Amino acid sequence: MLEELKQRVYEANMELPKHGLVTFTWGNVSEIDRETGLFAIKPSGVPYEELKPEDMVLMDLEGNKIEGKYNPSSDTATHIELYKAFEEIGGIVHTHSSYATSWAQAGRDIPCYGTTHADYIYGEVPCLRCLTEQEIKDAYEKNTGLLIVSEFQKMKKDVLAVPAVLCKNHGPFSWGKDGMEAVHNAVVLEECAKMAFRTELIQPKVKPAPQALQDKHYYRKHGANAYYGQTK
Amino acid sequence: MLEELKQRVYEANMELPKHGLVTFTWGNVSEIDRETGLFAIKPSGVPYEELKPEDMVLMDLEGNKIEGKYNPSSDTATHIELYKAFEEIGGIVHTHSSYATSWAQAGRDIPCYGTTHADYIYGEVPCLRCLTEQEIKDAYEKNTGLLIVSEFQKMKKDVLAVPAVLCKNHGPFSWGKDGMEAVHNAVVLEECAKMAFRTELIQPKVKPAPQALQDKHYYRKHGANAYYGQTK
Amino acid sequence: MLEELKQRVYEANMELPKHGLVTFTWGNVSEIDRETGLFAIKPSGVPYEELKPEDMVLMDLEGNKIEGKYNPSSDTATHIELYKAFEEIGGIVHTHSSYATSWAQAGRDIPCYGTTHADYIYGEVPCLRCLTEQEIKDAYEKNTGLLIVSEFQKMKKDVLAVPAVLCKNHGPFSWGKDGMEAVHNAVVLEECAKMAFRTELIQPKVKPAPQALQDKHYYRKHGANAYYGQTK
Amino acid sequence: MLEELKQRVYEANMELPKHGLVTFTWGNVSEIDRETGLFAIKPSGVPYEELKPEDMVLMDLEGNKIEGKYNPSSDTATHIELYKAFEEIGGIVHTHSSYATSWAQAGRDIPCYGTTHADYIYGEVPCLRCLTEQEIKDAYEKNTGLLIVSEFQKMKKDVLAVPAVLCKNHGPFSWGKDGMEAVHNAVVLEECAKMAFRTELIQPKVKPAPQALQDKHYYRKHGANAYYGQTK
Repeated sequence: MLEELKQRVYEANMELPKHGLVTFTWGNVSEIDRETGLFAIKPSGVPYEELKPEDMVLMDLEGNKIEGKYNPSSDTATHIELYKAFEEIGGIVHTHSSYATSWAQAGRDIPCYGTTHADYIYGEVPCLRCLTEQEIKDAYEKNTGLLIVSEFQKMKKDVLAVPAVLCKNHGPFSWGKDGMEAVHNAVVLEECAKMAFRTELIQPKVKPAPQALQDKHYYRKHGANAYYGQTK
Repeated sequence: MLEELKQRVYEANMELPKHGLVTFTWGNVSEIDRETGLFAIKPSGVPYEELKPEDMVLMDLEGNKIEGKYNPSSDTATHIELYKAFEEIGGIVHTHSSYATSWAQAGRDIPCYGTTHADYIYGEVPCLRCLTEQEIKDAYEKNTGLLIVSEFQKMKKDVLAVPAVLCKNHGPFSWGKDGMEAVHNAVVLEECAKMAFRTELIQPKVKPAPQALQDKHYYRKHGANAYYGQTK
Repeated sequence: MLEELKQRVYEANMELPKHGLVTFTWGNVSEIDRETGLFAIKPSGVPYEELKPEDMVLMDLEGNKIEGKYNPSSDTATHIELYKAFEEIGGIVHTHSSYATSWAQAGRDIPCYGTTHADYIYGEVPCLRCLTEQEIKDAYEKNTGLLIVSEFQKMKKDVLAVPAVLCKNHGPFSWGKDGMEAVHNAVVLEECAKMAFRTELIQPKVKPAPQALQDKHYYRKHGANAYYGQTK
Repeated sequence: MLEELKQRVYEANMELPKHGLVTFTWGNVSEIDRETGLFAIKPSGVPYEELKPEDMVLMDLEGNKIEGKYNPSSDTATHIELYKAFEEIGGIVHTHSSYATSWAQAGRDIPCYGTTHADYIYGEVPCLRCLTEQEIKDAYEKNTGLLIVSEFQKMKKDVLAVPAVLCKNHGPFSWGKDGMEAVHNAVVLEECAKMAFRTELIQPKVKPAPQALQDKHYYRKHGANAYYGQTK
């Protein structure tokens, strides 16, 4: 079933080690087929060098395994809540990529210090609060997803304009219209996290980039008036 | 037309990923043929692994596309202003290389802390002001070029002695007598930006290298009395 | 004798350069066969690129060489004390991996700032005191092992829950149920040391991750209720 | 002439890019044949990927080129002064390796913070003063060598026990009994410079490692009672 989807999710997962975003098995990509409501996700704890397209696990949005010999990623319940709440996204990535995770451990939003960030992410990357002890005990992964959803709604952030988030003391999630775009955003996030780290060490009193510059770069690549690249 | 130029610009572009200066498509190299007044530049948003010599876009200095199936780099208008103002340069590079961009985001000149820097760049690498909201809205890329030109003229800097600049909250441009030398200067800039970052963390009160040492190293490699390398 | 053990220890040793944990010969892995009481360990000062399975040195727990043409690692006496005191461990690694060694040189425990750390190491990685001048002169490597043993007992730390330690002004040791798991923990330690370094630079006042979150992640992977991965 | 020497110097030079110590042509290795008093050195400004054994330049200690089609390294006069003053050394390396150069730019000695450093370098790596304007103008490279010699004599440092130095605002020189050992010490220096940088950021008030520990590690590898490795 959905062989093409599994192939795509396999390929998107294999981009994570290629871009240096994962150590061992610390990452996962999923992508959803909105027609059937099923998504494919990396199996839990399987090393990337052994991964095959047919190992991808097919799940529905109620958390039932539809197909696959392996257990799905332990973060599956988080993916489900994001897919349920944000219809505009089609792929999700979780990693422990080194710089983004360091910001998450520090409990800080990543400010937008320049156009590299503004080209893909509108405004700062928010770092959410930690889950409460109760939320952790009840249903940790599901509550992680619910927190992302409720915080984005509270902050009135558009998930396509802000395609990444930091979970405090944990690490980043990113997303996009499909799995590959979610991986692209994970790479962008890591690079922006790295440069923001260095920027603050070079100039501790640095301020975010001017709003006009942020707008210019974001809308050069997104929306009706975009003119970057080869698409009209 | 100008097949050799396109081949050279292709090769210079391919040096960027080789030296770790670009993520995805975040960089471009151009080179001008001063006789015809035409320059070749990387197409916008095309991944390096798919790039071919024939993909290079031929442009004139009025911004007309002369040849090529792709759109030219979105930074083309910046390249044009630099070629028009500085007749002594033949190649231009723009990247978001990680350390140089971090200095640009921090809004600081990169001081000359040692001979690695002095060997290629005379004095600090200037970080220019951000464009105003009006300049951004009117003609962002063209105004970026005009700002570099006017600031270099105001600072009375020789573009061959200072072959790089930082655009605040954005990133570096570098140049040289051709595309390959511009790439060489982009690599030098990134290495100097990296070492200056570390130097200040090791000794926050560090001062620039003595002027006599800067002069010695610069003139060991440049001008009539140069004696580094194999050329007379 | 014990050819399979030597092969396993050889393979575990070869993982160290693959994961970037060693420069030159600065690291060693051993694994013990609890039935015979013999362990295999890397020979001293032999470069990784020349290492062969048959070069592994077989030792007993009294420090006698049982088989092998080379001298065993100069850290052999440390391994012996750990195997004697901690029956639950089957493999030991010593490296001078860059970030973990920097924490050891700084003389600081590595706090648990997030789930990457909590997934494998319960609580902070302790940095022990330096040996006294007398301890160094008498039997440096043996006393290093004895110090680790006595400090873990004093701190009431379970060696399987805290599978790594920093020796002040020296570097890390890690361990596990076999040599390969010990290497895995050495990689985890280095990654956590790197992220803790960056975390403190991003937020100097950072606190360790909440205990509930640490518990959740540790017990998601360890103990009777673990549900990460493919094992029941 | 001295074909074996040139081959050895070629191979030692090729270790520099392999260990990530050079960008472009920023480094050189030489080795001396004490019987003839001739040394072979890398030619100036020739890229490593094009270097061949026969390109090595043979020089005498008066600075005369004995054989070779290229100009010798621009740092040749520095090498000569070191060979003339220190009979116990047989090979010399100069690089602009990133961390060691950052310490040189910061103008600080690299303290001995741990056993990685103590295993190869006895005490801190000294950072010398800058040359005076007059010394720079008169004979820059020769005076660089003379300064290293006079400062080591003034500090009563044994060049084999302290096989590296930092030239302020410039970069490191290292040496050893032959070219390959000099390269080995250049790698050690860079790794120690990197870890010392991180150590101070983790613990700004850190002190050097206790003298007894420094002695233990140094003499475990050097002198009559050494017991590291396979040599008696």
